[in-house]
Amino acid sequence: MPPIVSIVGKSNAGKTTLLERLVPELKARGYRIGTIKHVHDFEIDHEGKDSWRHKQAGAHTVAISSPKKVALVKDVETEETLNSLATKYFQDVDIVLAEGYKQEDKPKIEVFRSQVHETPLCKGDEHLVALVTDAGLELGVPRFELDDIKGLAGFVEQRFLVKSSRVIR
Amino acid sequence: MPPIVSIVGKSNAGKTTLLERLVPELKARGYRIGTIKHVHDFEIDHEGKDSWRHKQAGAHTVAISSPKKVALVKDVETEETLNSLATKYFQDVDIVLAEGYKQEDKPKIEVFRSQVHETPLCKGDEHLVALVTDAGLELGVPRFELDDIKGLAGFVEQRFLVKSSRVIR
Repeated sequence: MPPIVSIVGKSNAGKTTLLERLVPELKARGYRIGTIKHVHDFEIDHEGKDSWRHKQAGAHTVAISSPKKVALVKDVETEETLNSLATKYFQDVDIVLAEGYKQEDKPKIEVFRSQVHETPLCKGDEHLVALVTDAGLELGVPRFELDDIKGLAGFVEQRFLVKSSRVIR
Repeated sequence: MPPIVSIVGKSNAGKTTLLERLVPELKARGYRIGTIKHVHDFEIDHEGKDSWRHKQAGAHTVAISSPKKVALVKDVETEETLNSLATKYFQDVDIVLAEGYKQEDKPKIEVFRSQVHETPLCKGDEHLVALVTDAGLELGVPRFELDDIKGLAGFVEQRFLVKSSRVIR
């Protein structure tokens, strides 16, 4: 199972924006990246498309397969944990970056923007491994400026990727 | 691995419509159904959504997880075969109904509407197991009227489901 790191933060702190910048930086360093987004509900497919019609008809699992990618929509009885998702679907990536999942006991990187919130989410959280912020806040973990994507990527690489062997491909 | 049956037919023969009617009929009989749609390319997610942004940023695999379902979009280097898809993603269903895949050596049910095409696709195909048609055509396999979904479901059940044990859940 690849290492899993959660990008956490309060609503509108900038989690997706950070992921959007961190993924290409890690990819440029040669790693294959997986991401997991936690939501309460979603509609992913487009109404009227064949695969959408399959799911609407009551299929438990629907896959769309093309020469370049595969998509899957599958019913679950209870929400999958990060470990379960990583084991089932992410064996072929080097690292999984999750967005949200602040309740799980995975290493967490918090995004905290003092312009948006008064206090960070993970103060005192033993799983917090880094803070990305515009505030001069000290939480006892490495701190990165919002724009210091290379610094953050270097930290992630050193801490979670260098010691693990890359996926053989 | 669950049994795999392909619904095949020429373009616009009514493959999706048949699947859309067959899935609930089999589901009502207590089976859990998976479907696979073959396409040349697809866009499944909605532009601007967080998961879409993850994929656009270069993630190899993106999952969206909610309490009721999971979605996955994964890059592949070569197109997955039906066997590979079934092994990876369909272990928890009783049967996989594929749409298309006329080249693969799986049992095939052809939809042929004489109003739309002059000749069927699978004449002489040794993997053809049934024909669903409005034509009085004899191809040496069981033939069902376009509206005889119960008859077709009964055939699929007898041939592919009764002897196999259902998924334990």
